[in-house]
Amino acid sequence: MPRVAILGTGLIGSSIGLALKQRGEVRDLEIVGFDRYRSTANASQKAGALDKVENEPSRAVRGAGLVILAAPVLANRRLMEEIADALEDGAVVTDTGSTKAETMRWAAELMPSRVTFIGGHPMAGKTEAGPRFADPALFEDSRWVVVAPPGAPSAAIESVTNLANAVGAEPMFMDAQEHDAYVAAISHVPMLLSTALFRTARASEAWPELSLLAAGGFKDATRLTATDPAMAYDIAVTNSEQILHWLDRFRGALLDLKELLEAGEERRDEYFKLIAQNEFEYTAYRAGKVGREADSSLPDSSGFDFGSFLMGEVIKEKMQEINRDQEKRLEDLDREQRMRRNV
Amino acid sequence: MPRVAILGTGLIGSSIGLALKQRGEVRDLEIVGFDRYRSTANASQKAGALDKVENEPSRAVRGAGLVILAAPVLANRRLMEEIADALEDGAVVTDTGSTKAETMRWAAELMPSRVTFIGGHPMAGKTEAGPRFADPALFEDSRWVVVAPPGAPSAAIESVTNLANAVGAEPMFMDAQEHDAYVAAISHVPMLLSTALFRTARASEAWPELSLLAAGGFKDATRLTATDPAMAYDIAVTNSEQILHWLDRFRGALLDLKELLEAGEERRDEYFKLIAQNEFEYTAYRAGKVGREADSSLPDSSGFDFGSFLMGEVIKEKMQEINRDQEKRLEDLDREQRMRRNV
Repeated sequence: MPRVAILGTGLIGSSIGLALKQRGEVRDLEIVGFDRYRSTANASQKAGALDKVENEPSRAVRGAGLVILAAPVLANRRLMEEIADALEDGAVVTDTGSTKAETMRWAAELMPSRVTFIGGHPMAGKTEAGPRFADPALFEDSRWVVVAPPGAPSAAIESVTNLANAVGAEPMFMDAQEHDAYVAAISHVPMLLSTALFRTARASEAWPELSLLAAGGFKDATRLTATDPAMAYDIAVTNSEQILHWLDRFRGALLDLKELLEAGEERRDEYFKLIAQNEFEYTAYRAGKVGREADSSLPDSSGFDFGSFLMGEVIKEKMQEINRDQEKRLEDLDREQRMRRNV
Repeated sequence: MPRVAILGTGLIGSSIGLALKQRGEVRDLEIVGFDRYRSTANASQKAGALDKVENEPSRAVRGAGLVILAAPVLANRRLMEEIADALEDGAVVTDTGSTKAETMRWAAELMPSRVTFIGGHPMAGKTEAGPRFADPALFEDSRWVVVAPPGAPSAAIESVTNLANAVGAEPMFMDAQEHDAYVAAISHVPMLLSTALFRTARASEAWPELSLLAAGGFKDATRLTATDPAMAYDIAVTNSEQILHWLDRFRGALLDLKELLEAGEERRDEYFKLIAQNEFEYTAYRAGKVGREADSSLPDSSGFDFGSFLMGEVIKEKMQEINRDQEKRLEDLDREQRMRRNV
């Protein structure tokens, strides 16, 4: 019977086990699990994600044709060291870690040449950690990034794309550096912002009132603060360069908004255009349009011509209102100056 | 039969109407609605939130003992102008707007002395707008901020607290300035961050890939980008001072994280402590602890003594691991320097 080893049986590892067992894409598979915390591995087995639990990673990988490292990034490195000698000839080793460049470097250094390492990253998750929250549908309709080192045998790559397909995900090939840049933008920087926002409110004298008043918006915006700190730490350590790069870009975007706000009435129409354009594009994105599909109804965003895009009556009226307000303000100013001259 | 007028029958106005009708706290009530867009008022009536629709705000308030302004903040101001002459003697006028200081100033200026204006702000909502998404349970277990001007008759205040109670919310008295500072922190700044984050990703060359990869974390962190632009604009215009103040505090918190990341290995333990403390406090907050209740298990956060607080095994081990790594790094450095001296 083919054997798969899952090392690290938290939310992701256990969800993979459950999906392999319950989605019925693969038959006659023996799943062996290991976790640094025996209780986590036991809970994973009890949830139905594993057939067997081993106490040592080197024991878990024996006889396994596919080995999945599903611990936080730095822990995966340690697992590589621990299993290197015990891996079967021709085994395929993959991982589910949040950053890939460092992982690929470690694999090149630590994995014996008789096995193939293919990097992986399922783009799914929750902030809840542990096998208790495992879900066989976690990966459905999500992307599973696959990073193949140059010269990797196609059969090994196929093992990993098969795994992704078997749990309901769509494989997406990518370079490790590219991956790390992308996830910094859509995952790691949002995590940092979430943490900084929660810190700002929590550290305030007014926190007792703030925490009473905060509704769904604040909770959603700070949800990533609940990311397992060990995982968040490993991400920061292995992807800090990309995180800092995207953080700078974010700070630029925030500064634009800040400057428009500070300019007050002078630039209110620009402020409204910016948030209305953003809302328009966001709605398209959430409606399932990916990439620049939405652009068909929008002129190019650099020379954004607000009047010409298909906007609702509400937005058009709002622009008129803002313009009326500005005109009125100019009239008032004009009248005031004329009055001064008369005095 | 007592009459209530709801002016602005979008998500909030319609949800109030539905809650008054369906929760059964108030009987024999006639609810008359007005909306700038007749189709919105009709949809609200069709959803069951209104008994009657009027084409003019001044007609809707006739005979009404309680008038609720539920449009975006600047539109509420216009409504005040339009209804001033038509209001019944002794009527109570309230609102549901997102900012309160400007609203209270307008009311003092525009409302006739024969009525009482009491400010209100239900701390509930969704980014979806319009009567289609109205929900009679929207306000349940949330706070309803009540801002009473000095000298307001207690019967008028009671009308508004009764309204809050009738829809399932808990009234919370507050000063207008205080309210505006708080909502800037927990609602308006998060909205700006959400917009800036989405902008950063959307404006990138890599958006086609980013939008494919982005999972739940990014979607939650950017959800407030979908806020109705007219509402978001009115908020920015009427609360920019507080928003800019809290934005600065946020930028400070973000800078702290950035500096720790930039310092690299030197300050990794500080970085971990910070995110772990945050995760700990956030979990307590989401578990329903408000204010500083959670502090009982935490020493004061300025002189935060990580070792002494009740932390899980995982976190303790992680700290040991980081310390081991740092020791190892120091040893390596030491050995390297000794080697150099020998050469």
